[in-house]
Amino acid sequence: MIYADHAATTPVLPEVFEKMRPYFSGIYANPSAMYRPAREAKSALEAAREEAAKLIGAEPEEICFTSGGTESDTWALRGVLKRSSNRGLITTAFEHHAVLNTTQALGREGVRVSYLSPDPNGFISPDSLQNEIGADTALVSILYANNEIGTVQPIRTLAQITHRSGALFHTDAVAAAGQIPISVKEEGIDLLSVSGHKFGAPKGVGFLYVKKGISLPPLFLGGLQERSRRAGTENVAAIVGLGEACRIARERMKENAEKTRSLRDRLLSKLREVPKMKLNGALENRLPGNLNVSFSGIEGESLVLLMDVRGICLSTGSACTSGFTQASHVLRAIGCEDELAKGAIRITLGAENTEAEIDTIAAELTAAVHSLRALTPGYETF
Amino acid sequence: MIYADHAATTPVLPEVFEKMRPYFSGIYANPSAMYRPAREAKSALEAAREEAAKLIGAEPEEICFTSGGTESDTWALRGVLKRSSNRGLITTAFEHHAVLNTTQALGREGVRVSYLSPDPNGFISPDSLQNEIGADTALVSILYANNEIGTVQPIRTLAQITHRSGALFHTDAVAAAGQIPISVKEEGIDLLSVSGHKFGAPKGVGFLYVKKGISLPPLFLGGLQERSRRAGTENVAAIVGLGEACRIARERMKENAEKTRSLRDRLLSKLREVPKMKLNGALENRLPGNLNVSFSGIEGESLVLLMDVRGICLSTGSACTSGFTQASHVLRAIGCEDELAKGAIRITLGAENTEAEIDTIAAELTAAVHSLRALTPGYETF
Repeated sequence: MIYADHAATTPVLPEVFEKMRPYFSGIYANPSAMYRPAREAKSALEAAREEAAKLIGAEPEEICFTSGGTESDTWALRGVLKRSSNRGLITTAFEHHAVLNTTQALGREGVRVSYLSPDPNGFISPDSLQNEIGADTALVSILYANNEIGTVQPIRTLAQITHRSGALFHTDAVAAAGQIPISVKEEGIDLLSVSGHKFGAPKGVGFLYVKKGISLPPLFLGGLQERSRRAGTENVAAIVGLGEACRIARERMKENAEKTRSLRDRLLSKLREVPKMKLNGALENRLPGNLNVSFSGIEGESLVLLMDVRGICLSTGSACTSGFTQASHVLRAIGCEDELAKGAIRITLGAENTEAEIDTIAAELTAAVHSLRALTPGYETF
Repeated sequence: MIYADHAATTPVLPEVFEKMRPYFSGIYANPSAMYRPAREAKSALEAAREEAAKLIGAEPEEICFTSGGTESDTWALRGVLKRSSNRGLITTAFEHHAVLNTTQALGREGVRVSYLSPDPNGFISPDSLQNEIGADTALVSILYANNEIGTVQPIRTLAQITHRSGALFHTDAVAAAGQIPISVKEEGIDLLSVSGHKFGAPKGVGFLYVKKGISLPPLFLGGLQERSRRAGTENVAAIVGLGEACRIARERMKENAEKTRSLRDRLLSKLREVPKMKLNGALENRLPGNLNVSFSGIEGESLVLLMDVRGICLSTGSACTSGFTQASHVLRAIGCEDELAKGAIRITLGAENTEAEIDTIAAELTAAVHSLRALTPGYETF
């Protein structure tokens, strides 16, 4: 099997699994309890918190562990709108659905939501935010990097504009964290969502960075965990795994990025040999392992299914909405015509992929595109 | 170490760990993806859903996996109040804080919340619910068994009264599930919260049973997971573990209950030899492994700390609020005087505890009570 869908999820790294392992049946105590084994679990939590903080240049007390990216996004968006008397929320038209659907719900609840459109390259222009923001804006939420096309947004500038207007800046960094350097302090980020399973930690764990001084009403009330910010027994083993994945991501980030970028570029140059292939989103300022391409005349879903038969795992876009036959909202937002948007496939590489795998993917995709086109009556008219 | 705090959390069962293990780094695909390994992950999820359903006599499609008990409670309470035009909520004064603090927040948001008081034995009388319920009641939420004193509530009767009035019945079954038989159909339960780590599954996973026909607005919006009822990549490994823990709990329930009840009774009869010992809550209709006792003149916290030095893990009450020096709200609710409530300790046994461990706990507790009392000037006046 060749796995090329790392944006959907990643295998748990062996080091991460080994680090988590003692916390299932050995050091299993509830970290809130008063006895020694509980204190051991508690200090493992705090060590993981330090690693999570280091990954994004934050302080440990600014990290709140959650069940993942969707919870982090929901908490950030609902929390800020609950505490603020301002009713404006600015986001983008190409957010992950965790943000998109939550902002739509907030819109139905009376929040005035504006959706900025990315340019055809996949970037939000600071001017478009500047034009939209106003005194009533409570929150600006713009993804760090898009999960389908990998384009990395000009976060520092967007956060500056947000702050000049007195609003808070949240970013869904689920696609970016662990892949590229992030510094919440230098970039002026107030709230940032991370999911562990996108970079070698297990599923079901993530965190929300909440800048010191911001008091966000909890989503879950109950026990006093996470300094009363997130009730519920801490998911100790998974949090320990997340901490280790953060440490490894930080340590190997440069090397992994170079490797996946080089594999990605190799794949792209081979796919460019296929006629009427289009790269979706700019190549510059893009996550290193991300490729999103359309082949004119081809349904992305057919390609994904054909590749599955060949043992190659890739996707048409976000895994979270697969089953949808609509064209991707991301590709439509960057102005991709419907026919090409429906033909898009996303290939996201990880550090364990090899050049041989890339060459197989390229050869299989090329062959599949040719044979599908041969089956399409009147393809020449496309 | 002797672990006697199973109500706080339990070790992951070896069989559960082995069942989960392949899903970290082997069958790691995102279950929402379209390729074969994803379908494998997806069918493991569905197999776990069947086991979860069987544990409580539900249908698989009535089970929604969550991050645990607190999320399940929050979703049930907020969900019902959001969809109903009725503004009344009836709960009890001795719920877990996940329910208690959420209902208090709902109260501040305009919901009319009533708190039923348990009787001195630790039970909610059906009459007290009958007297309180009215046409404006949207939801009744009463815990299945109390997490501190283990008393099992007359759920079937309480649900009947609730339904006669046209309201929905939710029960926080976090302390009860996996310990005693539950049948949502026979007992007429509409919503039921479960947490996996209380019976051999890992932390960070649980479920909410939502009776067919009830449409509960999701807490998290985003991806289409859990049939669009709970967005967020499914926590596959943990859910697989939860399924296995449900299967084992069902299979061993009778045997485990007999064992822990006999150990509990052995411990109680030994502790009854200590002068001025009081059992909190009735012994009948009580979770088999639960004991909650007070020793006049003694602080529960001192006993817990002394036991820790002897390698014995037990607690003063709920782990989630430990650090609190106030007397337990549960014990105050059943009319325990403050002095005795502050002296309470909770000992909760599991199937892996042994008679030898029980005898050690009894001997160490007895010795500790005697020496603490000897240090207390004027103890005779208590």
